Amino acid sequence: MTTNAAPAPYATTVHQVARPTGMPTPADFAFVEHPVPVPEAGTALVENVYLSVDPYMREAMEEGEWELNAPLEGRAVGRVVASRDPRLAVGDLVFHRHGWRTHALVGGDEARVLPEPAGVPLRAWLSVLGGTGLTAYVGLTRIARLKPGETVFVNAAAGGVGSAVGRFARLMGAGRVLGSTGSAAKAEHLVRDLGFDAAFDHHDGDFAANLAAIAPDGVDVGFENVGGAQLEGLVGAMREGGRIAWCGAVAQYNDPGDPPAAPRNLYDLVHKAVRLEGFLVRHHRDAQAELEAFAVPHLREGRLVPDDTVTEGIGSVVDAFLGVLRGANTGKMIVRVGDPGEQCEAV
Amino acid sequence: MTTNAAPAPYATTVHQVARPTGMPTPADFAFVEHPVPVPEAGTALVENVYLSVDPYMREAMEEGEWELNAPLEGRAVGRVVASRDPRLAVGDLVFHRHGWRTHALVGGDEARVLPEPAGVPLRAWLSVLGGTGLTAYVGLTRIARLKPGETVFVNAAAGGVGSAVGRFARLMGAGRVLGSTGSAAKAEHLVRDLGFDAAFDHHDGDFAANLAAIAPDGVDVGFENVGGAQLEGLVGAMREGGRIAWCGAVAQYNDPGDPPAAPRNLYDLVHKAVRLEGFLVRHHRDAQAELEAFAVPHLREGRLVPDDTVTEGIGSVVDAFLGVLRGANTGKMIVRVGDPGEQCEAV
Repeated sequence: MTTNAAPAPYATTVHQVARPTGMPTPADFAFVEHPVPVPEAGTALVENVYLSVDPYMREAMEEGEWELNAPLEGRAVGRVVASRDPRLAVGDLVFHRHGWRTHALVGGDEARVLPEPAGVPLRAWLSVLGGTGLTAYVGLTRIARLKPGETVFVNAAAGGVGSAVGRFARLMGAGRVLGSTGSAAKAEHLVRDLGFDAAFDHHDGDFAANLAAIAPDGVDVGFENVGGAQLEGLVGAMREGGRIAWCGAVAQYNDPGDPPAAPRNLYDLVHKAVRLEGFLVRHHRDAQAELEAFAVPHLREGRLVPDDTVTEGIGSVVDAFLGVLRGANTGKMIVRVGDPGEQCEAV
Repeated sequence: MTTNAAPAPYATTVHQVARPTGMPTPADFAFVEHPVPVPEAGTALVENVYLSVDPYMREAMEEGEWELNAPLEGRAVGRVVASRDPRLAVGDLVFHRHGWRTHALVGGDEARVLPEPAGVPLRAWLSVLGGTGLTAYVGLTRIARLKPGETVFVNAAAGGVGSAVGRFARLMGAGRVLGSTGSAAKAEHLVRDLGFDAAFDHHDGDFAANLAAIAPDGVDVGFENVGGAQLEGLVGAMREGGRIAWCGAVAQYNDPGDPPAAPRNLYDLVHKAVRLEGFLVRHHRDAQAELEAFAVPHLREGRLVPDDTVTEGIGSVVDAFLGVLRGANTGKMIVRVGDPGEQCEAV
């Protein structure tokens, strides 16, 4: 074992202690303090720097995935501070899945040593280069097969996936990039800061009418994050031959037993020869290298600026997660639990 | 003008004379008798032999497509009996779209001269080699991308498209071929005569339970002809990574203003990464040569036997059409209005 950093006096790990009904509350979680773990042969100690909280985690809170009274899992990036695994060296920056804690023991087979980070902020590995970015990239390329010049619409557009979809679509040569989101301020942010051509607040008036107003010629590629009435509005706006990539339904995570009404206009899929395709990003991990080849040059050259909401400290992780479910974030919601170091934050 | 056949003394043409509400009735049509038309320069006179009646025609009866009090359109095959178009020779067997009549004037650009028919019955150009067969072929190949060994399910399986889907899927190497239909007799016909592995009557018990019983490991490829509750049952039975080719909704043609309920389990498309893709066969005319390369050898060598319901005489065309809407046929519904000749019926 080698070490060049004094371990923190204690570590914090977040447990789920109750199964929520509907929207989770802080009482469903506990912060457990314990001594910093010591690596055994084949593991390394990682001080986490950033944790990812994501809407899909609400599903993991149901019976059958996350265990109660045990450390929660989630994507994280951190720095190796002690190692008994020859594949991980002290000082390595790594991506792994032992999030929701300040310190993690990870094996070399559980961690990816991140490439030299010049020009790429460390937290990008949890946002545009992470699962969020991969979801956007795969949805636009493999599922919807976006072609240059096409009109793209994404709902929940100010969220982590949605904001990546809009910016990736622009960089891929989409003709018009359109979105909906949960407030007028976020709609303005999309247009002013993220290069959307138009956006609207889905609370303000009729969804279908709002969409028709910003997409008078219809939508070629829809990126569906919500479901229910918003999906119905999108189906109605699709052009002949359009494709909808459907990656999640935030509205449904809190009540999987009572799904939102399905679109009454579903038969439009036939009339307009539209493809509605659900996908799971875990089926497309092999696209990661392609995502990086696409996004890293854009990051380095400033055409792609991460649009993250970063909360401070392990104590903020539950609030950050509940905030994601309420749509409190713009861009990817990330929790900073350690010092990224200057080098890693340079853009 | 050349001619080697005496024209019939009169011709019959079918007009739509009223727009139906719901199910059409015979009173919505009129049989108009008139002299056999005489070809002008650039057209040929075709004596129709077979006419196609298809479910999609119900949609054409709504405002905006078929004109009232004018000859109806539909696929037909017939024989050139007089010609003033150098592209069409007397004796040619042709496919064209001037159906619903005994005699048609067609230009060379409106007709396809059919290839030498040895081993291929003439009416096959309206069934497995026609729009019906093309729908089945495109749905299985381009839309659902069937792979050998996969389990296929088709509803309305005893109809023209459905029975082609089942037999094509078998010839393409599907693992299991399953179907639902509208009577116990038709379900038996599918298994006994058409090579389905299992089938059920959708009137007999719960659709989802029946489907689960014959597809305990789920469905890889669904071919959806109905919509509504049947689509919901199919979505529930789909395996991860499955594909549904959706080509029509017979249930809806009679009442386009009040679509059937959409599947309540639509979000399963995301959980199971399933593709639901509507398609219109008119976007895929370029697959016709591929269809023929696939199906003609199977027809000639007896592995694919047309499963047509043939009614006799132009006077039967309205009843045949209404029968299709009621599901009275097994296989493709075809109306014989002329003599095919012995050569054309040899299989």
